[in-house]
Amino acid sequence: MKADRLLIDCHVATMIEGGAPYGAVEDAAVVVADGRIAWAGPRADMPTVAADEVERLDGRWVTPGLIDCHTHLVFGGDRSGEFEQRLQGASYEEIARAGGGIVSSVKATRAASEDQLFASAMRRLEGLKDTGVTTVEIKSGYGLDRDSELKMLRVARRIGREGGVRVRTAYLGLHAVPPEHRADRAAYVDKAVDGILPAAHAEGLVDMVDAYCEPIAFSGEEVARLFDKARALGLPVKLHADQLSDGGGAALAARYQALSADHIEHTTEAGVKAMAEAGVVAVLLPGAYLMLRETQTPPVDLLRRHGVRMAVATDCNPGTSPLASMTAAMNLACVQFRLTPEEALAGATRNAARALGLKDVGVIAPGMAADLAAWDVARPAELAYWLGKPMLHRRWIAGAPAS
Amino acid sequence: MKADRLLIDCHVATMIEGGAPYGAVEDAAVVVADGRIAWAGPRADMPTVAADEVERLDGRWVTPGLIDCHTHLVFGGDRSGEFEQRLQGASYEEIARAGGGIVSSVKATRAASEDQLFASAMRRLEGLKDTGVTTVEIKSGYGLDRDSELKMLRVARRIGREGGVRVRTAYLGLHAVPPEHRADRAAYVDKAVDGILPAAHAEGLVDMVDAYCEPIAFSGEEVARLFDKARALGLPVKLHADQLSDGGGAALAARYQALSADHIEHTTEAGVKAMAEAGVVAVLLPGAYLMLRETQTPPVDLLRRHGVRMAVATDCNPGTSPLASMTAAMNLACVQFRLTPEEALAGATRNAARALGLKDVGVIAPGMAADLAAWDVARPAELAYWLGKPMLHRRWIAGAPAS
Ligand SMILES: [Zn+2]
Ligand SMILES: [Zn+2]
Repeated sequence: MKADRLLIDCHVATMIEGGAPYGAVEDAAVVVADGRIAWAGPRADMPTVAADEVERLDGRWVTPGLIDCHTHLVFGGDRSGEFEQRLQGASYEEIARAGGGIVSSVKATRAASEDQLFASAMRRLEGLKDTGVTTVEIKSGYGLDRDSELKMLRVARRIGREGGVRVRTAYLGLHAVPPEHRADRAAYVDKAVDGILPAAHAEGLVDMVDAYCEPIAFSGEEVARLFDKARALGLPVKLHADQLSDGGGAALAARYQALSADHIEHTTEAGVKAMAEAGVVAVLLPGAYLMLRETQTPPVDLLRRHGVRMAVATDCNPGTSPLASMTAAMNLACVQFRLTPEEALAGATRNAARALGLKDVGVIAPGMAADLAAWDVARPAELAYWLGKPMLHRRWIAGAPAS
Repeated sequence: MKADRLLIDCHVATMIEGGAPYGAVEDAAVVVADGRIAWAGPRADMPTVAADEVERLDGRWVTPGLIDCHTHLVFGGDRSGEFEQRLQGASYEEIARAGGGIVSSVKATRAASEDQLFASAMRRLEGLKDTGVTTVEIKSGYGLDRDSELKMLRVARRIGREGGVRVRTAYLGLHAVPPEHRADRAAYVDKAVDGILPAAHAEGLVDMVDAYCEPIAFSGEEVARLFDKARALGLPVKLHADQLSDGGGAALAARYQALSADHIEHTTEAGVKAMAEAGVVAVLLPGAYLMLRETQTPPVDLLRRHGVRMAVATDCNPGTSPLASMTAAMNLACVQFRLTPEEALAGATRNAARALGLKDVGVIAPGMAADLAAWDVARPAELAYWLGKPMLHRRWIAGAPAS
């Protein structure tokens, strides 16, 4: 077998479902050819390989490169001032009156150049890359007008070209009603659905369509209009659902065969069943849960019982989840939501891939893209156990060392 | 003025009390000579300086180097297996029966060589250094016999020599009753007080004396015996107090004029008053609060009202706080305990210095050691706002760039 790269002296958590925990293979080898996994398994069973490069990993663990399947990584400004004001005792109302809240992010994002947005997102991306991420989903949703939404998505694409990660984009026009449309939200929904989304799609900027379904954001009817358009354009959908109240978001996501329903703290058993039947992934976002001091955890037991796949993501955003570490997201999912470390890692690999509609990343198996991470850990559970300890040894994307 | 180093193009959060928030000086300069701050203030007011090196910081913020004033950084093994078992549904009893809990850390620590303990602690220390830490407190307490306790403290001293941080050690012999003494705890207390502490002190290994005062650990009487010995040896004391229940730990700490009382989730107003009168620092440990899913927060309002100084630390340890990031500790203190970002930063600088009895670190002022951190942030509040975003630009210890 000819190969570009051979990884040895390692253990591998393949994350293949149904076998050993973590799909673990101790004393393993991974053979990479043409950017893909050519072979992976116990070293003793390895076929004869002629590899251009052989990397000894000194007993480290290799996992699939991590996948952060829900981020708002691109935005202008930050909200640390508001964070501080709130802790100094200011009420949400006072902050809103002072121009805070999502409106301040919209203003700052509109005012920023593509270069500025790229540079600030790249700093946050460092935290994700340092924690093994090789694929990132990035949403629009702080532009809320045509030019600014397209600007955000172009920056996301540029990160995919220059940032050392693969990027999947989501159009999130129905994130908030922009200030200039407060008096006529219907007109904004029309514009988002019939104007901005088709324009962004025509420019090749949209991989998925997302929306924020919540009484404080958009109704099920408004979201359905957007999702109908997505379907007409052949784009998969996903949904911010049932975060603060049970608004039937999970069921709506299921009705549209969404890739994922995200947050879902308040989803009921009926919603969970609908997700299971439609194959919708549950994306758990423990950063927002922490920062908002929520007390209602997502229905993890129901999700398990009904066989809904769980992903874990950072939700990196300036208002409710200033979290830029994928292993921290895994730790918080375990500590707060009681996921097992194996569930957390599956949620950052195999199930996150599914939440993005990606079929060739997320597990280590022949034919899959050679997106890998090697870690200084004695067992995979450590990845979810430590908070803030640097554990990454190296990442590879399509078989090439990534930086 | 002659100087070794001049920092310009920066803003400085001096953390000097009583003036502007954060003791902030915008467009500042810092002059370093002989490892100490020679001058710091608005650049426009700077005296004429002949500096060997001038560093332009491109508008970054400079703070005192951070101080992690409560860690158990040195230990053998880790407890990620136990973390996993608990999340898989095992009870504390089952884990204890399987040899888990603190006993497993004691076994692993006793079995490890000094080199092994040094190497594993250095990996965890990376997380602290990456988040701006220049001084770390390190406790013994997983050895629980003379040789092993001294071994831990020697490793801590070695980290102080070779690890790129300043280290303060604490002897924590009364951390748990070692397994071989379960039947006669009094004999263990005797040994810890009259044997191990004096031996460690004679070898110059002890800067402070600590104990764990809790019904599941040691009683106030046992702790008092240890503290009397510390006093006789001229060593300052500190105490793990009132973490799981109100056991009068804060008052005990106050009676012995302890540097700090740590955890104190369950301390009552009487305890807080006693701390205030004795000048005891409250060390808040939000990592353990998170990992243990505690619901009783420390009495922050009472601490403020009575003027008790608050520090924030990682409590980095394998059982209850596998946290190795100082900025994460600050973030968690804000989010969970409602500290302001300024209080969190004071807790990681000025007040942490006080909790360690250090008078020449923790603020940026003439005469203080030039232990500094420069950060890629637009305002100091960002340091407590982000979780997992790399923000550190550089650290200096005694005026020299640290790595
Ligand atoms: Zn989101
Ligand atoms: Zn402790």
